[in-house]
Amino acid sequence: MDTTIFEHHESSIRGYCRNFPTVFASASNARQTAEDGTSYIDFFSGAGVLNFGHNNPRMKEAMIEFLQSDGVAHSLDTYTTTKRDFIQRFHEVVLAPRGMDHRLQFMGPTGSNAVEAALKLARLSTGRREIVAFSHGFHGMTLGSLAATANHAFRQWAGVPLTDVVRLPFETAPGGRTAIAEYAASLRDTSSGNTPPAAFLVEPVQAEGGVNVASREWLHEVQDLAREVGALFIIDDIQAGIGRTGSYFSFDDMDLDPDIITLAKGLGGFGTPIAMNLNKPAVDDNWSPGAHTGTFRGQGLSFIAGTVALGYFTDEAFLAGVRDKGQVMRERLERIAADHPDRDWEVRGRGMMQALDTGDGAFAKQVQAEAFDRGLLIGPCGTGGQVIKLIPPLTIGEDDLAEGLDLFEQAIRAAQAVT
Amino acid sequence: MDTTIFEHHESSIRGYCRNFPTVFASASNARQTAEDGTSYIDFFSGAGVLNFGHNNPRMKEAMIEFLQSDGVAHSLDTYTTTKRDFIQRFHEVVLAPRGMDHRLQFMGPTGSNAVEAALKLARLSTGRREIVAFSHGFHGMTLGSLAATANHAFRQWAGVPLTDVVRLPFETAPGGRTAIAEYAASLRDTSSGNTPPAAFLVEPVQAEGGVNVASREWLHEVQDLAREVGALFIIDDIQAGIGRTGSYFSFDDMDLDPDIITLAKGLGGFGTPIAMNLNKPAVDDNWSPGAHTGTFRGQGLSFIAGTVALGYFTDEAFLAGVRDKGQVMRERLERIAADHPDRDWEVRGRGMMQALDTGDGAFAKQVQAEAFDRGLLIGPCGTGGQVIKLIPPLTIGEDDLAEGLDLFEQAIRAAQAVT
Amino acid sequence: MDTTIFEHHESSIRGYCRNFPTVFASASNARQTAEDGTSYIDFFSGAGVLNFGHNNPRMKEAMIEFLQSDGVAHSLDTYTTTKRDFIQRFHEVVLAPRGMDHRLQFMGPTGSNAVEAALKLARLSTGRREIVAFSHGFHGMTLGSLAATANHAFRQWAGVPLTDVVRLPFETAPGGRTAIAEYAASLRDTSSGNTPPAAFLVEPVQAEGGVNVASREWLHEVQDLAREVGALFIIDDIQAGIGRTGSYFSFDDMDLDPDIITLAKGLGGFGTPIAMNLNKPAVDDNWSPGAHTGTFRGQGLSFIAGTVALGYFTDEAFLAGVRDKGQVMRERLERIAADHPDRDWEVRGRGMMQALDTGDGAFAKQVQAEAFDRGLLIGPCGTGGQVIKLIPPLTIGEDDLAEGLDLFEQAIRAAQAVT
Amino acid sequence: MDTTIFEHHESSIRGYCRNFPTVFASASNARQTAEDGTSYIDFFSGAGVLNFGHNNPRMKEAMIEFLQSDGVAHSLDTYTTTKRDFIQRFHEVVLAPRGMDHRLQFMGPTGSNAVEAALKLARLSTGRREIVAFSHGFHGMTLGSLAATANHAFRQWAGVPLTDVVRLPFETAPGGRTAIAEYAASLRDTSSGNTPPAAFLVEPVQAEGGVNVASREWLHEVQDLAREVGALFIIDDIQAGIGRTGSYFSFDDMDLDPDIITLAKGLGGFGTPIAMNLNKPAVDDNWSPGAHTGTFRGQGLSFIAGTVALGYFTDEAFLAGVRDKGQVMRERLERIAADHPDRDWEVRGRGMMQALDTGDGAFAKQVQAEAFDRGLLIGPCGTGGQVIKLIPPLTIGEDDLAEGLDLFEQAIRAAQAVT
Repeated sequence: MDTTIFEHHESSIRGYCRNFPTVFASASNARQTAEDGTSYIDFFSGAGVLNFGHNNPRMKEAMIEFLQSDGVAHSLDTYTTTKRDFIQRFHEVVLAPRGMDHRLQFMGPTGSNAVEAALKLARLSTGRREIVAFSHGFHGMTLGSLAATANHAFRQWAGVPLTDVVRLPFETAPGGRTAIAEYAASLRDTSSGNTPPAAFLVEPVQAEGGVNVASREWLHEVQDLAREVGALFIIDDIQAGIGRTGSYFSFDDMDLDPDIITLAKGLGGFGTPIAMNLNKPAVDDNWSPGAHTGTFRGQGLSFIAGTVALGYFTDEAFLAGVRDKGQVMRERLERIAADHPDRDWEVRGRGMMQALDTGDGAFAKQVQAEAFDRGLLIGPCGTGGQVIKLIPPLTIGEDDLAEGLDLFEQAIRAAQAVT
Repeated sequence: MDTTIFEHHESSIRGYCRNFPTVFASASNARQTAEDGTSYIDFFSGAGVLNFGHNNPRMKEAMIEFLQSDGVAHSLDTYTTTKRDFIQRFHEVVLAPRGMDHRLQFMGPTGSNAVEAALKLARLSTGRREIVAFSHGFHGMTLGSLAATANHAFRQWAGVPLTDVVRLPFETAPGGRTAIAEYAASLRDTSSGNTPPAAFLVEPVQAEGGVNVASREWLHEVQDLAREVGALFIIDDIQAGIGRTGSYFSFDDMDLDPDIITLAKGLGGFGTPIAMNLNKPAVDDNWSPGAHTGTFRGQGLSFIAGTVALGYFTDEAFLAGVRDKGQVMRERLERIAADHPDRDWEVRGRGMMQALDTGDGAFAKQVQAEAFDRGLLIGPCGTGGQVIKLIPPLTIGEDDLAEGLDLFEQAIRAAQAVT
Repeated sequence: MDTTIFEHHESSIRGYCRNFPTVFASASNARQTAEDGTSYIDFFSGAGVLNFGHNNPRMKEAMIEFLQSDGVAHSLDTYTTTKRDFIQRFHEVVLAPRGMDHRLQFMGPTGSNAVEAALKLARLSTGRREIVAFSHGFHGMTLGSLAATANHAFRQWAGVPLTDVVRLPFETAPGGRTAIAEYAASLRDTSSGNTPPAAFLVEPVQAEGGVNVASREWLHEVQDLAREVGALFIIDDIQAGIGRTGSYFSFDDMDLDPDIITLAKGLGGFGTPIAMNLNKPAVDDNWSPGAHTGTFRGQGLSFIAGTVALGYFTDEAFLAGVRDKGQVMRERLERIAADHPDRDWEVRGRGMMQALDTGDGAFAKQVQAEAFDRGLLIGPCGTGGQVIKLIPPLTIGEDDLAEGLDLFEQAIRAAQAVT
Repeated sequence: MDTTIFEHHESSIRGYCRNFPTVFASASNARQTAEDGTSYIDFFSGAGVLNFGHNNPRMKEAMIEFLQSDGVAHSLDTYTTTKRDFIQRFHEVVLAPRGMDHRLQFMGPTGSNAVEAALKLARLSTGRREIVAFSHGFHGMTLGSLAATANHAFRQWAGVPLTDVVRLPFETAPGGRTAIAEYAASLRDTSSGNTPPAAFLVEPVQAEGGVNVASREWLHEVQDLAREVGALFIIDDIQAGIGRTGSYFSFDDMDLDPDIITLAKGLGGFGTPIAMNLNKPAVDDNWSPGAHTGTFRGQGLSFIAGTVALGYFTDEAFLAGVRDKGQVMRERLERIAADHPDRDWEVRGRGMMQALDTGDGAFAKQVQAEAFDRGLLIGPCGTGGQVIKLIPPLTIGEDDLAEGLDLFEQAIRAAQAVT
């Protein structure tokens, strides 16, 4: 396979291609096929985008029809019939059943842009500057969202101070269980040096941060403090939302009431870009028209495929399947961890985002390489890449899931042999 | 037409829909058709994205074929055959003929993200913080790019100080012709309070800023100073590039040698998102793999349509047509201005970005509304929206262009009647 | 007494004069005498400056002689015989006996300036930006030192974001006992969002912050973490040093080894301005000549009186007296607290800085007013001014001390009667 | 002379002592005497502090009497008879004759602190962040004032970004004559990227910056723009004020009306520290009591000597003498410059601050060294130290002035011989 074009002409910043050194030619549901015919089972899903598989046939059909009928592919924030259908369907499937009256805001179609918009709105609504974000959080790469991202591997390239963010440990980090109470105490003490923030920004499940799962109790503690001090409570559900954990939002059934929810990745369904925030009306009212613009806000193909995607959430069998498959993944990982008691491995996750924390970045990298060699795509995450995250398409077949888990186990064994 | 769905459920930030109060159902080349059957001539092109028209048939065909063949729609920065074709074609059509060896960097698919990446790379390459940006410049909405954007209408919502940018007047603003020399003098004086910046970031034609056209001499002055003080010279060609001015880059034939060129908007051809920077190899070498990531970096549909778009630039007749149509637009605008000598209107632009500076935002807004009522989509820009920018698709037919210009002239007359 | 001059012509920012509404005409040791002849016992010592009393006769004599002999009163950082005597004496009395080889740095004669210089040197030495400072800390009013000051009552007037400081709870604040360990854990985790700071800045006894006393163990924990992460350990001993706690430094006998010690207030002995940092040679070597200048760095009168002040520290009886008087103060406060068990008052302090934390700012303010009416000067501190701090001159006679304590007790009782 | 004490124990930051390598033992009016008996004529006046000479006998007498009578040497901002006398005298001598109703604000006794307080008040009064400061301006060393200081030699050690200041060229710098008008135009244009500042901070004569003299017209242009945009007009008269230019303020007879005037240096008369701002009542009303505190705000000795100093300004013969001596200095410098037409030297200054801009820092340094060897103390200033500033005490005798100027001329000649 010829990769010289990339080596000669693409930026040296390119990354994943170094982990997956092949040239992909096609893809279908949980399978990617390289130019040389090799088939790979995809436990990575484009970093959590392809919840409904590659080239989901229902979406493909709708998109082709859209193209053939000259639908409005690019519309900024003008009204289109396609966008109206998406909004209507989103309301029917997601908001109305939950009694939510949040408004949908579209922006530049990246998760980073969704976070930037949310932080602007929080600062605008409160007249305050500081955002509370958590250790191991990942929120994007542009300066506003990068300031909220915790990982030094990303922060170090900013080139300017990353400011206006107060950092607290996530629930599962050292001090995480007491941090909210201590921070609350400091906000009640005018000599603490802390003043009330504009918002708390939190992922219920930290995906890039190492698949760290927050408890219902802790998230309520965060939300309660936000309410107490007049700050917004913002949930970043960009990677963990859209069905990944077995329900639409990762925090369904937790009885939370976020002021803003940021969504992107799986929202468009097919892998075409889209980002959207859900803003409570009283918060949303602080926006003036055009206050946060963006060229690619109105993406017809994403609305079309995203509308199809919403259909999955009216299918209880689909969601039950996600939970079942998640359970299969979980049990396999727990067995793997149990088989290596000396390694002190930890299994974490919810639904179909399950992970093995190996505590050893070099080992995890070797597992990833061995998996690739065997035809399985996986990605490390967490500090130093020590956590192996498994996020197959929610639509993966049981056979592919089983085969992928077998390959994973083989890769673990192979990596142990060489490290 | 039913817009209640939008009014009930979409964020109050929505903007363009207030100027174009209808629901679009389909679009083809320079025409958009509303749900009620009204046809509009599009002189706005999705804010400069749709250089090759709505639903460009060549692109549509290629995209459908791509979908049907299960091409890799979403690939992060892994290698795909589709991406390879795009890179190869870009090299053949754009870089090689110009003797350029810049490397292609893909990122989150918004122009704002392209600018954020460019500023990071400039700061990383030089170890300096400050970026010189210009009055009336528009570079995006995320905190890093927004700091470089000049317009208070956008800056006022940041919620935090926008820092690390030194502001100079653009060539056409008061003091603009002497500012570079004076700033240069200040950099030579260690008591000036200024120190050398990381980069100069400039649009050869400021589109959002009011269609302000920089001269070759002034751009060379900027580039020369950048070289002298060890700063990067960055051209933001996001709106003016990709053929808009009659050649691929807006600065072709100016003998400039930018270190980084930011591209987005028209690059994907069809209106699907993509953003890309061109980095000189010596600059690009400062990147580490994964230093600036992004979920939607690898967009198969945008690569496919973008590859088709590149074909236009091997067709000299197409580019000649752009220049001819630009001349038609220019002459009409000049005649309109000449017909109203008391109004002191100014015509500015290059190629098929032509504008009438009316000096009066309320009047321009009225012209836009009258145009919409007559079936023409146009957008104001510049300070207070006083400049009416005409940017039809480059592929617009001569009849639609002529009809659109007639409608524009009628709208001007109607607006004069009521203001 | 005529205060109209002040009311007409002095800034409305004036503060202490509102607590002590009289016009002072003279002062001697622990007594201040108003224009109307009223004599006040001074338990405030000019906010901790007058450790050796008002108009200390030994100093006065030396200063008059200095003036009569045309000594160099103002010398910037040129060499003078007077300054040489001070440095030599400081070395003999303070540094040599402790085996310290710190270098003396003089700067603009305010504590705030001493802190600004220390933070500059820490940032310069480490190439890092962030300073760890603690809740309830007070370090000054200029933007660099104010960023390290915790109290919102002072921070709220900055007018700009106060940045580049990481805030941790002081040992005695909620979370204070675990904060260092948790922060240490976060520095070992590259995904925590924290990176190693330039320095830890801490007061062993927080005077303005409410007379909070750090333990030897906690201070060692701070110092150890500083060493581990390559940060400087800076002790701000501006108010608690120079004998106040019964030894020269407030941290003597704790076996600490700070990289920088900031001094001011009592250092000049007589109340004339001086500030001085003690820098370890390896740290100090990072300074270039003139890197932090200041007009009033070389104060002959302060050197003269400060040299006399150093003599007190060669007199073990003096220090024993300080400790004894401190014990008298302590016992009286504890008895007062014990007499009001329902009030939950807390006594805190070391040496001759003793305080009663009343937990009630309005009550403390009333006590201060009642004390003034009875001829005793005291000052509230801590959050909301709820802590009454007693810091008489170290040279106060036993009679004045006893009388002052009696007046204090009367004031407490009177305040209880009216609140 | 023994300097080992300094070399062993004083910080390596010490600077002036390297230019004047001796140990001074006493001083009187314009003479400093070293330990070895060498007498130096002082054309430096402690960096502009000693306007009334070293050990001014009238002040010395008053200070000794104050000490002997147990005056209140240190009073924070409580009322004292001594401070009342100073305020009353200041009102009589300075404010009342000029019809000024500014209020006196005392703070930590450094010029830097005066500037910090002024900037706080400007930001507080306007709710804006940015301060306009000028190239070559010097305003202090603490982070807030350092941000306004232009010289890279001082700024480079800050260790953190120096923010919230907009830099314009001073009248005499390249672009200086048009900068105010261009900046004004940018403030009227909402797309310029500039928004109205909190204040304009300007020195009518830039002393440290190289003795750059602003014209009345230019200062009015600055003041007018401040008024137009609702910003404060702040004059920093710390070095040029208190009689240096031949009248109390350096801007007397210019019909200016500053909102805040910062004073320090010569204000105390004797070289003991003091700093004071004059705030217009409507501006001053924005202060809350204690909003900007400082330990050494109330300096009895500085009030005493400063009150004596004010007496000089009721003596028209004194001011006439200053002007006459200034004229003698000016003529001598102009003759020196005229004698070396090939050198392109420039003479600048007002009153008894006169300077020779040699355009060559190495040469100026040599002149300073040659002068020292001949018994004359002078100090270079301006970019690279190329400007030799002569600021003898205003009280210097005609003989010493003439002898000093002779020595200066000899030093020039000697420096030419070796460079």
